[in-house]
Amino acid sequence: MSRILLLGAGRSASSLISYLLEHAPTEGWQLTVADVNPAHLVPVLAAHSGYARAVPFDIQRPELLEELVPQADIVISMLPALFHLPVAQACVRHARHLVTASYVSEEIRALDAEARAADILILMECGLDPGLDHMSAMQALGHIRSRSGKLTSFKSYCGGLMAPDSEGDNPWRYKFTWNPRNVVLAGQSTAKYLENGRLRFIPYQHLFTRLATLEVPGYGQFEGYANRDSLSYRAPYGLHDIPTMLRGTLRRPGYCAAWQALVRLGLTDDTVHLANDAAMTWAQLLESYLPAAEAGRSLPQQLADYLGLAADGPEMQRLSWLGIFTELPVGLADATPAQLLERLLTTKWALQDGDHDMIVMQHLFDFEIEGQRFQRSSSLVVLGDDATHTAMAKTVGLPVAMAVRRLAQGHLQQRGVVIPTQPDLYEPILQELATDYGIHFVEQEQTLG
Amino acid sequence: MSRILLLGAGRSASSLISYLLEHAPTEGWQLTVADVNPAHLVPVLAAHSGYARAVPFDIQRPELLEELVPQADIVISMLPALFHLPVAQACVRHARHLVTASYVSEEIRALDAEARAADILILMECGLDPGLDHMSAMQALGHIRSRSGKLTSFKSYCGGLMAPDSEGDNPWRYKFTWNPRNVVLAGQSTAKYLENGRLRFIPYQHLFTRLATLEVPGYGQFEGYANRDSLSYRAPYGLHDIPTMLRGTLRRPGYCAAWQALVRLGLTDDTVHLANDAAMTWAQLLESYLPAAEAGRSLPQQLADYLGLAADGPEMQRLSWLGIFTELPVGLADATPAQLLERLLTTKWALQDGDHDMIVMQHLFDFEIEGQRFQRSSSLVVLGDDATHTAMAKTVGLPVAMAVRRLAQGHLQQRGVVIPTQPDLYEPILQELATDYGIHFVEQEQTLG
Repeated sequence: MSRILLLGAGRSASSLISYLLEHAPTEGWQLTVADVNPAHLVPVLAAHSGYARAVPFDIQRPELLEELVPQADIVISMLPALFHLPVAQACVRHARHLVTASYVSEEIRALDAEARAADILILMECGLDPGLDHMSAMQALGHIRSRSGKLTSFKSYCGGLMAPDSEGDNPWRYKFTWNPRNVVLAGQSTAKYLENGRLRFIPYQHLFTRLATLEVPGYGQFEGYANRDSLSYRAPYGLHDIPTMLRGTLRRPGYCAAWQALVRLGLTDDTVHLANDAAMTWAQLLESYLPAAEAGRSLPQQLADYLGLAADGPEMQRLSWLGIFTELPVGLADATPAQLLERLLTTKWALQDGDHDMIVMQHLFDFEIEGQRFQRSSSLVVLGDDATHTAMAKTVGLPVAMAVRRLAQGHLQQRGVVIPTQPDLYEPILQELATDYGIHFVEQEQTLG
Repeated sequence: MSRILLLGAGRSASSLISYLLEHAPTEGWQLTVADVNPAHLVPVLAAHSGYARAVPFDIQRPELLEELVPQADIVISMLPALFHLPVAQACVRHARHLVTASYVSEEIRALDAEARAADILILMECGLDPGLDHMSAMQALGHIRSRSGKLTSFKSYCGGLMAPDSEGDNPWRYKFTWNPRNVVLAGQSTAKYLENGRLRFIPYQHLFTRLATLEVPGYGQFEGYANRDSLSYRAPYGLHDIPTMLRGTLRRPGYCAAWQALVRLGLTDDTVHLANDAAMTWAQLLESYLPAAEAGRSLPQQLADYLGLAADGPEMQRLSWLGIFTELPVGLADATPAQLLERLLTTKWALQDGDHDMIVMQHLFDFEIEGQRFQRSSSLVVLGDDATHTAMAKTVGLPVAMAVRRLAQGHLQQRGVVIPTQPDLYEPILQELATDYGIHFVEQEQTLG
């Protein structure tokens, strides 16, 4: 019997919980689901009372961690990433395994020796991105290496988007399926990547204009902008000398050019409080950003001129659809521009009943075998089942859950702080995702030149 | 007899120290100058041993504050602004007056009641900017009020620049006379000001393109960009309902357009470490920011095209003068772009022997009297005497020193945390600056339409 403790049962944990409940009877698991608001778990767990219970949890009360962790064999943390450190420290203290879907922080990496000494696995980055990206990339890289291919370029993109049937009349073809604040603040630094052996930089002011176009079989075109740091992936992937390496984020075509207009206006700045009233309207807010108004010219005309956009072009259509030229109140007093934009977008980009989200991931490899150049793509599209089992919840939660199952079965021998880049870890998970959930990558390969 | 303790005797304290030494014998002062490096003070104080001494000081050693503050009647802090709080706390504890040239922080403002209870004055913002700006603005505002003028607009600009005889062949007409890091990072937020009763915002990406042109009698044209927060000056100046209020920074014409090119390139970003080698050249760094190079086109050509600049225009001339198209090594490994730019500028914009700096300040007032509209300007130009008694050192240090003299003489009755906006404080200081140092504002007034 394994005792499994899940900390945090928010939206993104739905598919994880379903998997754990499904396998608990046959695997002999005792599940404890600990959440700030355990009431919402009662109906979910009702049919599973023999092996699952919900308990209240609050990361601000360290005594709860001290009580719950020793009662478990494996701890899963789906808490916000900043709370993982105290959980990992408790796991080390009580010699309990830990699995999460979040990035390894420096502080958690520093626990490696202690985790080894305690004979535990702290498996991080085991969700979607990070998670499935590592697993699928390492599998494809292993395939290329097995053919003695010499890798020259590796680009990898991922995006949480809307299924085509749920895009509706939204010209952005985007809704929030993940933390809205992170979407608004995305890219506010300088992106670093490698191209032909040289460092390449893109500052924020150009990020949404320097785009790649990608084609995903069956789903058409996407555009990709560079993530903040593509360099840090060389070491874990064993690609120390790769000439070209880039990681990026996917959006539907046209999104980035319109977003760039919001960036240029200044509406993504989160460093200043505007001293505004909550009753200020969006039209007034925009006017405050424009040089002095010229009589007789409408606000959209002035804005289009200021940013050098076509008055009836696709960027202005997307901006107009957001309602920023209307008398809609901004609704927050003395807020940052980013807070006001997030508040607006949260209404415009809200998931509706019946909406299906979509996860898209694509890896692009260039490699050579005996002088012949090849290009290979691995593409994944996952559609949400419904508002509970979203593509996001499935792709984040299932890899975690499957890793926990393998760990409980005694199949995972690695100890210390680990990410899923080893075949014994990722191969069974990729296999199970494909076989049982239809979550599989489409591989395409062509020769070049 | 008054015992005066000066904490911090760096470059900007030179004129302050001279003033204190000059008046100490007649005023009966005992001076203690406390500095991290007291050795450099020995020759300065040698002829004044009867009433002045230098002592070692380190803000990291609280026992030194505890020893020195009780031995003084008035403390002057010329330490970096972040160190003022422990000094102010010690002054409250030991009931000693404090004078500084730095902004009132929230933490220091919170000491107001305690300072009043201890019957001490904590006089802040008593240098140049903040300092002379408050004093001269309040004097001019008082003049307008005395004529029953109704103020409709108040704009105020200040800049630390080079005297015309020291600009040499530097096309920026600028050198560092103040903290280089602050110059590189200037404006990295959203500027807020008031125009015709409406809030106005300028994000960083437009800041150096939305300029005012100013004319200073005898010194030609300057350009001004908006400071971060012009709104916070309404309350201390008693201008709660003023329709137009803006504070800005002065540069010589053309500076801002060229600086905007550096901003757009991304070279002022301080949020990312570039993973670069110290041996990377400036040309390589710039190439890393540009889209893939086209064969046969020079780096300056590519850059001019990328930014939409004329290849032989004034912006490109200024960029080229900095040496950024050369094989000069950037010199710092894994640095932020802003760190690399600061390092380069510190060599190109270094003061040379014989250079004279220049402080320029200009207030612009619009007001109405009985339906007639007036425009009034108050302009100050101060030239540095030499490398020690710079315009910066004079204008920052002398107001502090003069306030200390008035305080020691018992003429200042205000208690608590105060800035120099009251006539009994600023009138004698402005008078002494004009009479004894030729530091005076030129007033011009005209009627409008």
